[in-house]
Amino acid sequence: MLFWDDAAVTRGDGVFESIKIVDGKPVNLERHLDRFVRSATLLGLDAPIREHWAAATKEAAVQWAEKYGEGEAACTWTMSRGRASRPHIPSTWLVVKPIGKDILRQRAEGVKVLTGPRGYQLTETPPWSISGAKTLAYAENMAALRYAREKGYDDVIFTDGEQVLEGATSTIITLRGNKVRTPQPGGPVLPGTTQARLFTAAEKAGLSCKEKPMYLGDLLKADQVWLVSSTRGPVLVTQLDQHVLKPSGDLKAIRKLLSEG
Amino acid sequence: MLFWDDAAVTRGDGVFESIKIVDGKPVNLERHLDRFVRSATLLGLDAPIREHWAAATKEAAVQWAEKYGEGEAACTWTMSRGRASRPHIPSTWLVVKPIGKDILRQRAEGVKVLTGPRGYQLTETPPWSISGAKTLAYAENMAALRYAREKGYDDVIFTDGEQVLEGATSTIITLRGNKVRTPQPGGPVLPGTTQARLFTAAEKAGLSCKEKPMYLGDLLKADQVWLVSSTRGPVLVTQLDQHVLKPSGDLKAIRKLLSEG
Repeated sequence: MLFWDDAAVTRGDGVFESIKIVDGKPVNLERHLDRFVRSATLLGLDAPIREHWAAATKEAAVQWAEKYGEGEAACTWTMSRGRASRPHIPSTWLVVKPIGKDILRQRAEGVKVLTGPRGYQLTETPPWSISGAKTLAYAENMAALRYAREKGYDDVIFTDGEQVLEGATSTIITLRGNKVRTPQPGGPVLPGTTQARLFTAAEKAGLSCKEKPMYLGDLLKADQVWLVSSTRGPVLVTQLDQHVLKPSGDLKAIRKLLSEG
Repeated sequence: MLFWDDAAVTRGDGVFESIKIVDGKPVNLERHLDRFVRSATLLGLDAPIREHWAAATKEAAVQWAEKYGEGEAACTWTMSRGRASRPHIPSTWLVVKPIGKDILRQRAEGVKVLTGPRGYQLTETPPWSISGAKTLAYAENMAALRYAREKGYDDVIFTDGEQVLEGATSTIITLRGNKVRTPQPGGPVLPGTTQARLFTAAEKAGLSCKEKPMYLGDLLKADQVWLVSSTRGPVLVTQLDQHVLKPSGDLKAIRKLLSEG
C-alpha cells in the first residue's frame, strides 16, 4: 500500500524496472541494476544501492519458487520521490507476480502490431532532461496500447515519419540472414536491457549485430521481426498494420539466444 | 492509501484537478469539472459524474472550514484506471490540505522564473493522443522545477525557440496597458481554468483579453507578467532568467479580478 501523497501516485515521479524470474533466479540482473541506477540518477533520486536490490530480488525469487514452484514470474522494482509530507525519503518497493495469460498467449501466437506516430520530436534538450530514464509516466503508451487493442491489435510500434522507434513497452529487433538489427537507442528510444542481452548472446553465436536507424520498409523486408522486453521475453510480430508478415528461417533462434544468454 | 498495483502508481495512468477552497467553498468549480471530464474522456476512463464530484467537494470544503476555520485550502481530485488485479474499476479520491508555506511566500514576494526548452515539438497527432488531458505524468515538469530551484529560481517557463508556452504547473498571463494576453492554448499548452476565469472577469471589467502566440520579448515588454494556477492563485514574475523585471501599474488589479471572478 502507498500513501495518497506519494510522488509515484500524484506525479508519476519515480522510476521502475521489470525483471524476469526463472527457476528462482532473476535474469539479466546487472543490466537492470545499471538502468535502474541511471534512471534514478537522471531524476535526482538517491542512487539505489545495487547490492541491496540484488539481494532482495534474489531472496524474493527464492521465496516465490518455494511457494509457487519453479518456472517464471515477474519482478518489479519501484523507487519514487516519496511522500510530499515527508520530504527527501524515497519510497522503494519490490513486487513479484505471476506471468499474465495475455503474455503466454502472445509468446505462443505472436503479436499483431499497429504502427503510429510518437506524436513528438525531441528538439533542444533542456538541462533538466530526464530523457532515457524509465519513469512511471507511461500514460501516453497505455493510451496507444488501448487504442491498438480496440482495433484488434496486440501492440504498438511508434514511428517518426517512415522511421521506426520502439514498441509501447518493448524494443524492436529484426533478423535478416545473419544480421540482427535494432533502432539506434537514445533520444526517444529507451535503451533495452533485453536487446543488450540478446546482442551479447548473438555476437557470441557469430551473428552480426548493429544499432542503426530503422524504417518501416526494413520491417517488411526482414526474415523475422521481434518485440523484446524482460518479462514478456521475445514475441514474434505476425502482422504489421494491414500487412501479414511471413516469418522465415529458424523461429527458435532468437528465443534460444535469450534463454541461454 | 492506494494499492501498489494501482495504475496511478505504476503508470501515471490517471487524471487530476487542483481546486482552491475559500471560506468553505470551492472556487471555479464548473471549469474544473469541465476539464476533469475532458481529461478522463481523453484517457478512455468513465466520465466522472459531475454532481457527485461537486457535492463531495462542497461537503469536504464545509468540513475543512468547520475543523480548521475559514480561509484557504487546496483540494485535489484524482481518478486513475484502478488496480491491475481488478480491471475496469477506476480508483477515485479527493483530498483537502492546507496551502503550503512556499505558496504563501511566492504570493507575497513574487517568483523568479527560469526559462528553458520544453524539449520536444508536437508533430503528427497519433489517433490515441491524450494531449490536453491533465494526467498524473508530471515527472518531466518536476525535474524542471527541481533544476530551477537548485539554480535559485522558483519556477520554470517552457519555451519553443523564442516562443513561450506555459509554466511548469501554471499558465502565463501578461498585462500591458489594458491588454491581457495568454499563449494560445492547445498542443503543448494545457488550457488553464484560472486563466479562463481571469479572462471572463477581465472582459467584464473592460480589459481586452486575447489568446495569441507569445514570445520572450513580449514578457520583457509587458507591464506585468503573472503565472496563474488554481491553488497558488496569481503570482507576479519578478525575474526572468537574468532579467529583473520592473512591474508597473496597479499590481492588485489581476489579484482583484481573480478573487472576485
